[in-house]
Amino acid sequence: MEVIVPFSTDRPKSRLSGVLSRDERNRFAREMLDDVLDAVVAAGGEPRVLATDAVDADLPCPVTVDDRPLTDAVNAALDARLGESEPVADRVAVVMADLALATPEALRELFAAGREADVAIAPGRGGGTNAFVAGHPEFETDYHGASYLDHRRIADEVGASVEVVDSHRLATDIDEPTDLAELLIHAEADGDGNDGGGGGKAPRWLRDAGFALDTTDGRVGIERE
Amino acid sequence: MEVIVPFSTDRPKSRLSGVLSRDERNRFAREMLDDVLDAVVAAGGEPRVLATDAVDADLPCPVTVDDRPLTDAVNAALDARLGESEPVADRVAVVMADLALATPEALRELFAAGREADVAIAPGRGGGTNAFVAGHPEFETDYHGASYLDHRRIADEVGASVEVVDSHRLATDIDEPTDLAELLIHAEADGDGNDGGGGGKAPRWLRDAGFALDTTDGRVGIERE
Repeated sequence: MEVIVPFSTDRPKSRLSGVLSRDERNRFAREMLDDVLDAVVAAGGEPRVLATDAVDADLPCPVTVDDRPLTDAVNAALDARLGESEPVADRVAVVMADLALATPEALRELFAAGREADVAIAPGRGGGTNAFVAGHPEFETDYHGASYLDHRRIADEVGASVEVVDSHRLATDIDEPTDLAELLIHAEADGDGNDGGGGGKAPRWLRDAGFALDTTDGRVGIERE
Repeated sequence: MEVIVPFSTDRPKSRLSGVLSRDERNRFAREMLDDVLDAVVAAGGEPRVLATDAVDADLPCPVTVDDRPLTDAVNAALDARLGESEPVADRVAVVMADLALATPEALRELFAAGREADVAIAPGRGGGTNAFVAGHPEFETDYHGASYLDHRRIADEVGASVEVVDSHRLATDIDEPTDLAELLIHAEADGDGNDGGGGGKAPRWLRDAGFALDTTDGRVGIERE
């Protein structure tokens, strides 16, 4: 299954600006992208990065550049593959580039759900759509606001059956400082990262940058050396 | 499988004090407990509430009162069932009372994982332990701090095999105002709640109390009439 991974080269991860400089955010976003691509390949997917601009480093997969907003770029990609005029694929997946906790196992469940239903969605915490598989020519995206609810509604409107994938790893996009703690927790729990999961490049980069878990007040946060 | 559901009658849900009065928090906590008990029964479990004090309303299951801190009370319950002297059960589950998003399906996966491994854990967001199944006489809990990591370590130390249950619904304990949005999102997505999931009593109570999703700034929060 082709797996489109949208990636913004333009000021990625701005909500981490309180804890990471702009250059650090760029590097961290690339590490997360690498982890996601590794997990997609390990799950049997064929990744393609959908970037807003040229990506300034070698990637292990094809890249399409489309500088339109996320919704438009993804809809164009869906239409090119599933559109009623000349469909060239049965199914296509879209997986966000900041799902640094994604494991091959979680993605395999998503892909399997996407073969059973017309649309399979892994909702993100906060009502986003972190990953989906579409196999219906009329399904389209709208990433503004609570996109999970919008995508359920759109699927209903076009008569597409929906399967929801219940995964904490796929629900956790790394957007805010508390998400960094989530990444470090699961990296520590997973150990050496040989499973392609949370112990990947992104948590290693974070630790090398001096971040560690902080549990001193009984709740789990992050600290930086 | 017996499923112990710890429930604090003493100032529950204090982190919601910014949006709910004390009386409201008590009532909301009870609605969530009812939803969790319903989901446990629908998943084939036999719930028992482990309360810090007498619960002032009829519950559809047995209640044990133990006023000790959570860790001590749960460890005593585990020891009484799995302890090496006179084990009376093969397995016992512990599911937190604020998992208002828990569905029978998610709990069935937890119970199934707990039959495959000595310990099955559903980590909570932020490194907590939202639900587990134990079948090893020496496994014990320590709920302080990043308990998910502590419980993985304790399982390793006693030689217990571990299965991790990757579920957004089980990872989401309802602790803070942003969690209320999560509850309303999934209740809206699930529709009428006939599946015993997020469309249960707790989100209905929230809506009756005037809460609604607020997506006006492009991110999803809550508003109250």
